[in-house]
Amino acid sequence: MLKKLKYNDEFIKSIAEQYPTPFYLYDEETLRENARLFNKAFEWNKGYKEYFAVKANPNPEILKILTNEGLGCDCSSLAELLICERLGIVGENIMFTSNDTPTAEYIKAKQLNAIINLDDITDLQTLENCAGLPDIICFRWNPGPLYNVSSVIGNPVEAKYGLTTKQLFDAFTLAKSKGIKQFGLHTMIASNLLDENFFVTTAKTIFDLVIKIKQQTNVNISFVNLGGGFGVAYKPEQSPLNLIKIGKEINAEYEKLNNAGTLPPIKIFTESGRLVAAESGILITKVIHRKDTYKKYIGVDASMANLMRPGMYGAYHHITVVKNSIPKNLSTEIVDVVGSLCENCDKFAVDRELPALEINDLIAIHDAGAHGYAMGFQYNGKLRCAELLLEKSGKIRIIRRAETFNDYIATLNINNW
Amino acid sequence: MLKKLKYNDEFIKSIAEQYPTPFYLYDEETLRENARLFNKAFEWNKGYKEYFAVKANPNPEILKILTNEGLGCDCSSLAELLICERLGIVGENIMFTSNDTPTAEYIKAKQLNAIINLDDITDLQTLENCAGLPDIICFRWNPGPLYNVSSVIGNPVEAKYGLTTKQLFDAFTLAKSKGIKQFGLHTMIASNLLDENFFVTTAKTIFDLVIKIKQQTNVNISFVNLGGGFGVAYKPEQSPLNLIKIGKEINAEYEKLNNAGTLPPIKIFTESGRLVAAESGILITKVIHRKDTYKKYIGVDASMANLMRPGMYGAYHHITVVKNSIPKNLSTEIVDVVGSLCENCDKFAVDRELPALEINDLIAIHDAGAHGYAMGFQYNGKLRCAELLLEKSGKIRIIRRAETFNDYIATLNINNW
Repeated sequence: MLKKLKYNDEFIKSIAEQYPTPFYLYDEETLRENARLFNKAFEWNKGYKEYFAVKANPNPEILKILTNEGLGCDCSSLAELLICERLGIVGENIMFTSNDTPTAEYIKAKQLNAIINLDDITDLQTLENCAGLPDIICFRWNPGPLYNVSSVIGNPVEAKYGLTTKQLFDAFTLAKSKGIKQFGLHTMIASNLLDENFFVTTAKTIFDLVIKIKQQTNVNISFVNLGGGFGVAYKPEQSPLNLIKIGKEINAEYEKLNNAGTLPPIKIFTESGRLVAAESGILITKVIHRKDTYKKYIGVDASMANLMRPGMYGAYHHITVVKNSIPKNLSTEIVDVVGSLCENCDKFAVDRELPALEINDLIAIHDAGAHGYAMGFQYNGKLRCAELLLEKSGKIRIIRRAETFNDYIATLNINNW
Repeated sequence: MLKKLKYNDEFIKSIAEQYPTPFYLYDEETLRENARLFNKAFEWNKGYKEYFAVKANPNPEILKILTNEGLGCDCSSLAELLICERLGIVGENIMFTSNDTPTAEYIKAKQLNAIINLDDITDLQTLENCAGLPDIICFRWNPGPLYNVSSVIGNPVEAKYGLTTKQLFDAFTLAKSKGIKQFGLHTMIASNLLDENFFVTTAKTIFDLVIKIKQQTNVNISFVNLGGGFGVAYKPEQSPLNLIKIGKEINAEYEKLNNAGTLPPIKIFTESGRLVAAESGILITKVIHRKDTYKKYIGVDASMANLMRPGMYGAYHHITVVKNSIPKNLSTEIVDVVGSLCENCDKFAVDRELPALEINDLIAIHDAGAHGYAMGFQYNGKLRCAELLLEKSGKIRIIRRAETFNDYIATLNINNW
């Protein structure tokens, strides 16, 4: 569905000549197209909004592009709220979805007039005590045994998120009694799913729940947040999600209930991070080592410090190769592509068939625009790399500089050394 | 073997009143005792040195304590070398053990006269080209199919580290032909093992290999680095390693070969990070939330950002509780102890039986002094906490301040906002 990056080899080589590897390269056009796709898939719904999950890629330049396309921001921490504040993203353009929430975060979310999405029935009192109650409140529902989805996020019964169904009814009743004026319902059951039916079923379940909430508590839900979980076809053999089809089928379910008079008009929100941003970003890294022991290894100058998903989850990221010089032969070989961390899981690919690689060849690690830089660490004293943006104009711009040793020791008091 | 922290509840409460939670608290005395234990276990070996794996805890104040006890530093990156340089730790007090190594790191290691431990046979030429050859060279051996150890580090055949046995002989021959004067042999096969026999068997295997290398290449190995892998008894029911016993049994194997005239005197090195530092550190965090849905959850103000091992590996860390007030009852309950990240794996404990906890109670997460702070990230915009040191004198000192929002955005150009 969403298109792959269209850089040719010469283009990537020319960037790697100008900027030291490794670096992230994001494509503004892909970001805008993906944002528009969400808006198009749900254009039938008045008030629809996709809240980009900031945790997937908190770079302010990325957020500026996405909010310029009409997206909101889903924040999960004080730092993410502060970034939005500095960018002028406030009010109903923020949904604040957190769990085990420190009071300082509620206070800032309330101050920014963000839509606050509560994770627990007790959070309403906590919020009231620390920040006062807003006019709008959303609650996150955990369907528990109703769903048994195998995914990164785990079985809902084992998930720390959300209220039980019983608590949900009680929470809306309580919120109404406290004078809340607008109500939202949120769920986020799965992560990185490619099953289109799942999203339609979830929407239908949520619509039914809205009706039940009205019947049992007389609370009118004015918006539902269907969550994220929209998967990316990381592997070439996977079929990308058809978001337009999902939108249409959700529309059909919505119309059915709306026409029957049971479901009043409600706004639909989503909160995808991955499907909006993943394909827009590649991690460019250089081959610095070849090793032939019990297996063949291609060592690159990026590591888990730059992209943790393969090492942490065994996640697949597609890799393509940009040869530095005209290849001597066109053969392929089976290799592990590894970083330099003293962690054996620091591998971008295991037993991957790739064109034969030499020192100074470049590797592009695809679909790294979400949960890529954002999950990086500094373990082993490895530093995080720069982020570049390819603007629509064709201009390349550094949107985050690479870390230096001084960044690494910034929280130490060097006077004591 | 190594003793548990001896803080009482009142002491921890008093620190948590002075410093905002969460924070790491390290105990100088435990660090010194652990360092001395390594020195004692191998005191029979002239020239023995434990090279502390800096990646486990790169705080300069920790390194100062350990090197003051005679330990060296095992570095694996440029940043770790630069920290050592600033602390005046140079020459044979550094072993530089890396893989897929950028040339800048070799250049710095050579400049500091560190012992350079090469991971691949081709690295000798790379080192010569970029930095020139030093007088001393060590090679890392990967035993491959000889060992099949189930551990975090994986099966040696699948491990990216080290030279094959055949390559090792060729490498020493090559190094000698290039005029290298002193030779070392290193292996690091496992991680976090509690099987004492494993370490003795490994030492014996290495000693046999030293003899074979002499026979086949006429190269005299002057030191062997037995690696780390010394496990920590994270669970209360596990028996701690008896390092003194391991040292004695390795001594017996050494003496046997030495007395038979086959093994010349060689220096023995180790490179533990975990067993030196883990027990010296606890992560203190406060209960900020209680939740009762399909399971019971205790939400604390630390998260995976502070300690990643439970979320990343499912690793066990023992937890003890410091009640804020006199408990109303002494009952226990089965809970998940969770952080606030939008990652369902952000759990410090799953289905753990703990004394009933209330808001503002404190939790001490044990054995966090190694691979704790060092593996932290800033995912979700969560910031890394402070590190405190309890000095031998009883004084508490901040040895790393907590991160602020300005640290989080340090690599962004806020003028563009």
